[in-house]
Amino acid sequence: MVVSDAMRIGERFLAVDWGTTNRRVYLIEDGVVIRSERDDRGVKAVAAGAFPAEVATIRDSFGDLPMLLAGMVGSTIGWQVAPYVPAPAGMMDLACALSWVDERTAIVPGVSSVQGGRGDVMRGEEVQLLGAVAAGLAPPNALLAQPGTHCKWVSMEDGRIAGFTTAMTGELFAMLRGHSILAPQLGGSVSPGDAFREGVEHGKRRDLAADLFGVRAAAMLNLRDDADAASYVSGLLIGSDVAARLADSRHDAVHLLADPVLGALYTIAIEANGREAFAIDSHAAFVAGIVRIGAMS
Amino acid sequence: MVVSDAMRIGERFLAVDWGTTNRRVYLIEDGVVIRSERDDRGVKAVAAGAFPAEVATIRDSFGDLPMLLAGMVGSTIGWQVAPYVPAPAGMMDLACALSWVDERTAIVPGVSSVQGGRGDVMRGEEVQLLGAVAAGLAPPNALLAQPGTHCKWVSMEDGRIAGFTTAMTGELFAMLRGHSILAPQLGGSVSPGDAFREGVEHGKRRDLAADLFGVRAAAMLNLRDDADAASYVSGLLIGSDVAARLADSRHDAVHLLADPVLGALYTIAIEANGREAFAIDSHAAFVAGIVRIGAMS
Repeated sequence: MVVSDAMRIGERFLAVDWGTTNRRVYLIEDGVVIRSERDDRGVKAVAAGAFPAEVATIRDSFGDLPMLLAGMVGSTIGWQVAPYVPAPAGMMDLACALSWVDERTAIVPGVSSVQGGRGDVMRGEEVQLLGAVAAGLAPPNALLAQPGTHCKWVSMEDGRIAGFTTAMTGELFAMLRGHSILAPQLGGSVSPGDAFREGVEHGKRRDLAADLFGVRAAAMLNLRDDADAASYVSGLLIGSDVAARLADSRHDAVHLLADPVLGALYTIAIEANGREAFAIDSHAAFVAGIVRIGAMS
Repeated sequence: MVVSDAMRIGERFLAVDWGTTNRRVYLIEDGVVIRSERDDRGVKAVAAGAFPAEVATIRDSFGDLPMLLAGMVGSTIGWQVAPYVPAPAGMMDLACALSWVDERTAIVPGVSSVQGGRGDVMRGEEVQLLGAVAAGLAPPNALLAQPGTHCKWVSMEDGRIAGFTTAMTGELFAMLRGHSILAPQLGGSVSPGDAFREGVEHGKRRDLAADLFGVRAAAMLNLRDDADAASYVSGLLIGSDVAARLADSRHDAVHLLADPVLGALYTIAIEANGREAFAIDSHAAFVAGIVRIGAMS
């Protein structure tokens, strides 16, 4: 729809971090979270055409307020496509490119990057990343990482997303655990012990296809207890991800937006590659980001 | 069973290249293949305990002769375990370590390697690899590769397997095609064109987790036609495999045991990494190998 002066989010609004499988709704007043709820109504659980009803239900529960949506809700499998803003992109670039559904409901765009012919995209992470810097949780010139199924590595310059790389580290682990010849060995849990650290060291070789087969061979030759295989493979994948990214970076620290478990694993790998790791609270970063975008719109 | 002088294979025998999903039976007389048949009775298709009946059926069809079996038939999912011979290993090492089932039926052992704490195993490939060198199809000091689900890279020294590395290159491709977020993009066929070559170039970065996500981003940003995605990903995987192996090798050529399609793809990647590739006939290599092991036993 055509953007008009009537369109505003303001200081009292509902924010929804609406991902593929989960979403979290926040009621925000003057920059403070008054109420927050998480559920499993991710965009995959919402039929095409059912988004207006979903949003009405949220307003019934949280209040009849302006609403700012971020994440996969703005993708082709979401409510309405919010086209990517190309990097370099800052908070104001996102606020100016909001995709308005109606006069008080807007979707935050994702960010795209094309560097040396290599494309990359993010959708949802940009709010947390820019929010972290805006709130002083990370420096304005820094390397940030958001581990997960698809790990985002973001080069922040002057508080804007200058460029980024996504590694499908978590997805590779899930795929190996579920569907590879290694699956019977990978049933164990991942712990940040010696096997994980050995994987991180081998990950520096950045030779996944061979080191993964080595996991099978290690079992055949009794070189490693199968109970340690999952930790080793996790270390291998995270280690090669970290090694590849740090080889290309001049920063001596990584600022991590992660849950404590994954954060601890990435911290080990980052330190094993000679850099410092700092943890950032993801929820605080999201709120900081969405509050600023709301105020700018 | 205890090895005795009565145990012999000799000059007229049946050889079976018995893999996981397929097998090929050869009737060999004085080093020449008289008859050969391939079927899908791989070890996975044979119930535990049913191997004696399978072998009896083969003898009914091909002649009541001594029999030499190679491949997964000697593994834990096969008939009888033929323990690995540690590298360095030559033809005589295999012949001396045959696992006899009865006085005229033996299984060729696989080969293991442990280098710098990294273990590796092969079972079945050793006959072709040593056979290729013994028949003069490859030099006695050379780098050989046998691409496939699990690609074997073998350093041959003085005609013996000095060490080797297995990369699960083909399995990663199948897994990505079947189970990853990229699956919908990877339905096309792989051809040795520009997209494959671009993948090979990017594969030199040895940064699979990021370059694979780039395939998805390329689709979102219309940077590459999805029809080319399978070729690009194949190039990426084969390219990183080849680049990793050649970085560690002093040889200026690779001798390839592969079918023509996969051989052509690996040849492109090997040449893109500045080395020469030579094709070897896999069947001729197997026959050369098994004939010599038979004669030595």
